[in-house]
Amino acid sequence: MTTVGILGGGQLARMMALSGAPLGLRFLVMDTVADACAGQFAPLIVGDWRDEAALGEFASKVDVATFDFENVPAESAQWLADRVPVFPQPRALAIAQDRLAEKTLFRELDIPVPEFAAIATREDLDNAIAKLGTPCILKTRRLGYDGKGQFRIKTPADAAAAWEALGAQAVTVGLILEGFVAFERELSVVAVRGRDGEFRTWPLTENWHVDGVLSASLAPAKVDAALAQTAFAHAKKLAEALDYVGVFALELFCRDGVLLANELAPRVHNSGHWTIEGSETSQFQNHLRAVLGLPLGDTRMVGMACMLNWIGAMPDANAVLAEAGGHWHDYGKEPRSGRKVGHATLRADSAADLAATLERVGVALGREAQVAPVIASLRG
Amino acid sequence: MTTVGILGGGQLARMMALSGAPLGLRFLVMDTVADACAGQFAPLIVGDWRDEAALGEFASKVDVATFDFENVPAESAQWLADRVPVFPQPRALAIAQDRLAEKTLFRELDIPVPEFAAIATREDLDNAIAKLGTPCILKTRRLGYDGKGQFRIKTPADAAAAWEALGAQAVTVGLILEGFVAFERELSVVAVRGRDGEFRTWPLTENWHVDGVLSASLAPAKVDAALAQTAFAHAKKLAEALDYVGVFALELFCRDGVLLANELAPRVHNSGHWTIEGSETSQFQNHLRAVLGLPLGDTRMVGMACMLNWIGAMPDANAVLAEAGGHWHDYGKEPRSGRKVGHATLRADSAADLAATLERVGVALGREAQVAPVIASLRG
Repeated sequence: MTTVGILGGGQLARMMALSGAPLGLRFLVMDTVADACAGQFAPLIVGDWRDEAALGEFASKVDVATFDFENVPAESAQWLADRVPVFPQPRALAIAQDRLAEKTLFRELDIPVPEFAAIATREDLDNAIAKLGTPCILKTRRLGYDGKGQFRIKTPADAAAAWEALGAQAVTVGLILEGFVAFERELSVVAVRGRDGEFRTWPLTENWHVDGVLSASLAPAKVDAALAQTAFAHAKKLAEALDYVGVFALELFCRDGVLLANELAPRVHNSGHWTIEGSETSQFQNHLRAVLGLPLGDTRMVGMACMLNWIGAMPDANAVLAEAGGHWHDYGKEPRSGRKVGHATLRADSAADLAATLERVGVALGREAQVAPVIASLRG
Repeated sequence: MTTVGILGGGQLARMMALSGAPLGLRFLVMDTVADACAGQFAPLIVGDWRDEAALGEFASKVDVATFDFENVPAESAQWLADRVPVFPQPRALAIAQDRLAEKTLFRELDIPVPEFAAIATREDLDNAIAKLGTPCILKTRRLGYDGKGQFRIKTPADAAAAWEALGAQAVTVGLILEGFVAFERELSVVAVRGRDGEFRTWPLTENWHVDGVLSASLAPAKVDAALAQTAFAHAKKLAEALDYVGVFALELFCRDGVLLANELAPRVHNSGHWTIEGSETSQFQNHLRAVLGLPLGDTRMVGMACMLNWIGAMPDANAVLAEAGGHWHDYGKEPRSGRKVGHATLRADSAADLAATLERVGVALGREAQVAPVIASLRG
C-alpha cells in the first residue's frame, strides 16, 4: 500500500486523490487550514509546512510526496526531500517560484520570452521602464498567484505609484519588470515527464483570463500544427533542463504568430482540468503515474472540450448536467469572493456542437460573457 | 452541502464516492467491518444495519441514503426509509432479494424467464425436478450472491444431496428450483431511472462468468439491434413496475436468439464498471444523479470497452497501464481467495484494436484464458 503525501489541500490535491484512488493509492494531505477541501476525501494533517514537527509527522507517514501548491518554501521542500522522495524536485519548484530565475532559464534555453529586467532599486525601475517602454508590469519575483503582487505601469508617471505599492518587497522577495505583451491569445502546454524521462503533452490549450484569473480553456486550441509543435518543443526542453518529474504547465503568449513563454507552473494546472473527461488519461492521474514511476497514460483527446471556471460561488449545476457532454466539478468549498470553487467541462465531438452547447449553457447561467470568447474561437 | 449515506462500504460504495465528489457531495458509509475499502475515501460508521442505534446515527447524518449491497434486510431499509429518503425504494430491494418474487414479477410483466418452481418440501423438489427436467439448479430464495447458496442437480438422483445441502433453508430463507438454461451468451442491461421517471440504458453488455463470478464484460455486446431493443424494453418495463430510482442491472441469458431474464441487481453493477472510462457518464455518477433528482447524464459509449475482473489478488498493473486505453482499478482491499479486489478497463476505437490490446494484456499477465472468450466475440 503506497501513501502519497500532498503538500497543500486545495482542489488540485482533491482531484489528485480522486484520480489516484483507482491506482490503489492512499493519500495524506497537509494544509494550514482544517477545512481544506481535499480533506473531504483524504486524511488531512493541519499544520504549517515551515513547522518541522508537523512536516516531520507528514514525512514519516508517506512513501512519496508532491504538491498542489507551487509556493511551498523551497527550504521546506528540500527538508522534506532529505527524508522522502519528492517530485517535482525542489530545484524545479525553486526556479518556478522565482520569476527572474524562471525567465533567465527560458532565455538560456532559447525559449523566447517577453522583455524583463531585475529591479532592486527605484533607479533600476526608472531605467527599466525607459528600456522596456510602457505599458509594462512590475511584479514580485516570488509568491505571485492569479494576478496578486502585480502593478500595471501604463505610463512612466506610474513608476512612483508602482514603487509605493511594491518597492518594499524589492529587498524581501525581489521585483521584476516585465514588458507588456499585446498578445492575440494565451496558450498553455500541459505536459508530463516520467521518472525515466518519458515526455508527453496533452493537446495545446487556449485560455482566457478575467482579472488575472483563468475564466475558460479550450482544447485543442485552434492553432496550426507547427505552432503547437513549437510549444511542445519548448515544454520538452524545459522539462529536460530541470530533470522534471510530474505534470507541469507552460503558459505562453502568442503575438504575431510567435510564442513567448510567460510562466512555468510546476504542478497540475487549471488549464488542464478538461483532461479529466476530455482525455484518455487525466493530468491528475498522469502526475501520480509519473511521481510513482508507473507507465504514463495516453494523453490523446476524445473530441473537444471547454472548461469554464467558477469563481466566488457555484452557479446552478442543472444547466450543465442537462447537457450530454456536461460534467460538473464542485470542489466542496465555502463560497468566497475571488475563490476558485469549481469548474465545468463541456465535451463535444465537433467545434459546432461545442459552440452550441456553450451558447445554451451561457444563456442558462447568464454567463454569456464568459463563454463568448470561446464560441468566437470555435466559430472563427 | 448534501451528504449521501451508503449502506455497505465495498468497492461499489468506494467508486460511488469517487464519482460523486465532483458533484460537491459528501458521503457517509456504513459497514460491518472497519477496513471496508470505501472508508479510505469517505467517513465510515462501523455497525450492523440491524442495530437501530447505529442505523439511527447513520440516518441522522445523511440527507439521502442508498446501497452498495443488495442484501441489506428489507426491514432495515424500511426502518431507514421512515427517517430519510432511500433510493432505490425498499420494495424494489425486497423483490430483488427474493428470487421467487423477482421471477414472478418478470412473468407478470411478460418478460420471458427460465422455468422455475417454489420449493417448500422434499416432495416439492422431486415433483419440480420431474417437471423441469435435469439439469436444474436448487437455490435459496434469498442471500444468494456470486454462486453461493446454489446446488446443481445433474440427474434426479442428485435430489437427495441437494436437499441435504440446502433443505434446511426451505423454512428459513426459502428455496426455488430453476431450470437449467443452455445459453449461448450472458448479457446485461445496465440502466438508470430518475426520480421523474426518465429512463436511460448504457449499451448492452456481454458477460463471462467463471465459477459463478463475473470474469469479463464487453460493451457494446455484439448482438443485433433488435435484440438490444428487446433487452432495453424489458429493463424499462421492470423499472416502471417497481417505480425504480437509481441504477440497476438486468441479467439476461440468450438462448436460440431469445432473451430470458435471470436476475435483477438493484444497484450499480459489476458489468457496468466499464462505464467509468467507456461512457460519457459512469453508472456511479448517474446513480447519484438519479437518487438526488439531478438531470441524468449521457449514457453513450466512447469506442468499445472490455472490463476484466481481478479476483483474489491484483495482477501486475504495468501491463495494463502501458496500454493506451488501459485503466486500472485497485479497490485497496487485502487479497483473499474469491474476493473481488479490482478490475481493469481496456478501451479502444475498434473491435480489432480492442482484441489486439486484450491479447497483449492476456499474454503479459498470463491470463490468456480470461481474455480468450472476449477476443473470440470481438473477432467472431
